Amino acid sequence: MKEKIAADFKELQSYICSELEKYDGYSQFQQDTWTRKEGGGGRTNTISNGKIIEKGGVAFSEVFGEVTHEMKKQLGTQGDSFFATGVSIVLHPHSPHVPIIHMNVRYFELENGQYWFGGGIDLTPHYVIPRQAAIFHHDLKKICDNYNLEFYQKFKRWADDYFFNTHRNETRGIGGIFFDHLSEENSDLTKESLFEFCKDLGKAFPHIYQKQIDLAQNTEIHEKHLEWQRLRRGRYVEFNLVHDRGTKFGLVSGGRTESILLSMPPVANWVYSYQAEENSDEQLTLSWLKKDVDWLSFIN
Amino acid sequence: MKEKIAADFKELQSYICSELEKYDGYSQFQQDTWTRKEGGGGRTNTISNGKIIEKGGVAFSEVFGEVTHEMKKQLGTQGDSFFATGVSIVLHPHSPHVPIIHMNVRYFELENGQYWFGGGIDLTPHYVIPRQAAIFHHDLKKICDNYNLEFYQKFKRWADDYFFNTHRNETRGIGGIFFDHLSEENSDLTKESLFEFCKDLGKAFPHIYQKQIDLAQNTEIHEKHLEWQRLRRGRYVEFNLVHDRGTKFGLVSGGRTESILLSMPPVANWVYSYQAEENSDEQLTLSWLKKDVDWLSFIN
Repeated sequence: MKEKIAADFKELQSYICSELEKYDGYSQFQQDTWTRKEGGGGRTNTISNGKIIEKGGVAFSEVFGEVTHEMKKQLGTQGDSFFATGVSIVLHPHSPHVPIIHMNVRYFELENGQYWFGGGIDLTPHYVIPRQAAIFHHDLKKICDNYNLEFYQKFKRWADDYFFNTHRNETRGIGGIFFDHLSEENSDLTKESLFEFCKDLGKAFPHIYQKQIDLAQNTEIHEKHLEWQRLRRGRYVEFNLVHDRGTKFGLVSGGRTESILLSMPPVANWVYSYQAEENSDEQLTLSWLKKDVDWLSFIN
Repeated sequence: MKEKIAADFKELQSYICSELEKYDGYSQFQQDTWTRKEGGGGRTNTISNGKIIEKGGVAFSEVFGEVTHEMKKQLGTQGDSFFATGVSIVLHPHSPHVPIIHMNVRYFELENGQYWFGGGIDLTPHYVIPRQAAIFHHDLKKICDNYNLEFYQKFKRWADDYFFNTHRNETRGIGGIFFDHLSEENSDLTKESLFEFCKDLGKAFPHIYQKQIDLAQNTEIHEKHLEWQRLRRGRYVEFNLVHDRGTKFGLVSGGRTESILLSMPPVANWVYSYQAEENSDEQLTLSWLKKDVDWLSFIN
């Protein structure tokens, strides 16, 4: 089955890129194929200076080999060899009114038959607008509900906990869903259904993002917004390099650096002790960056 | 003695800031005083948009209290309460021909009497010029040699190992000196002499940097240089957030985020799989970013 999963994930990458290209208009993804010395490889598709997307990547990988010391430490796994495949996306839009989006679906298997799925989609608006966040969460809930009525709440909470910049005491954005180590044993679903769930998330991804893009299309952009966007991109860098387990694990375990750091924004700024103006949109955004907001309640 | 060390470090901070202000001309450091809930506090001096320095900080802190779980994990220490004081500096210049510089001197003490000094100075040129690197290393060696003839080689190697971006397989810059856990037991020097050594480094710091600034004063700046600077600043961010033990420890152990992230550049860029042009100055710089270069040999 692992070959099927990898093949479908690869197809998913192609589908997502072609859908994003349709929206984005004139810019196309560049393909970069690479192999991994120890086994497997990947196809990293990147876009820069599109009409909507300033910098982004949609990466597919399928790697296998011996379980490394770092993997044992992080995963606490038994077994000597592994297989892992997944699709990872981060898109940084030009407009500060369009959110940064991240998606990942992944499958991991050990030679002893143990396996799991992981992944999620989360949104990082430079400016938080509750109704836009509600639409995003509503879209995710719809997919989750098709599989398990507990998934949305559980994975929403997981995302709140995971995408949290502890050193800033703020969430990365308005969250979304996050899940890991998902298998038949802990989900009431068959392996096939879990796989379908991951694929449904992937297939919905470009359309979910399209909605977010459309919602921002009439919002004017001023220099103040761009300044704020560069500061928020700095926080995105901080989360990914300081806290994100996938990034940290990849970088210390000899992963492909350029594919892992696809998530970096084109540009980021830092200002010492930046203070948002009283009652500004920037300050309002900061007030929303906390866990356990019931975004669905803002749908109307 | 710890009160004396903290007081002298605080004075050192003032001295360094006033010397840097003299060179920098019209911009002054802004003082930010803070207290730590669990004990102690600090004085964080920052500069932005100076004539030479685009963004920088000179931070003093003196903290004490219970040894935390995180500290025990990282330091492997015994004892229940600690005292720590130090001065930390990172300066990001406007000109891509002036290197980024970092300095730190610190003192740590446990209630059982165990103590150590740590610190170092290292240089991260956006463009590596061996003769400039040689002058820097020569300046450091002179100070080291006043105390122990083995210090320079030992601490130079330590800096090469420490300031290394493993995920890029390149050094952060041209190194310098780095030392930690230095005490009477491992240095053939008294505690007083080690303290003098740290202070000498601090006092020399502004003059060492001034030389580096002067060396670049006639070099023209083109857009290409500024682009490269923003990319190199991205690598600086990567080192500090992914590898630097002080930064990581500070951020996860509840240190003061704004003081820890003083080291961030004003702006950083990321480009997927950036390739320097064949035989360009940028490519030449990359070829120098390796350990064990005998920079002193380029003095003439």
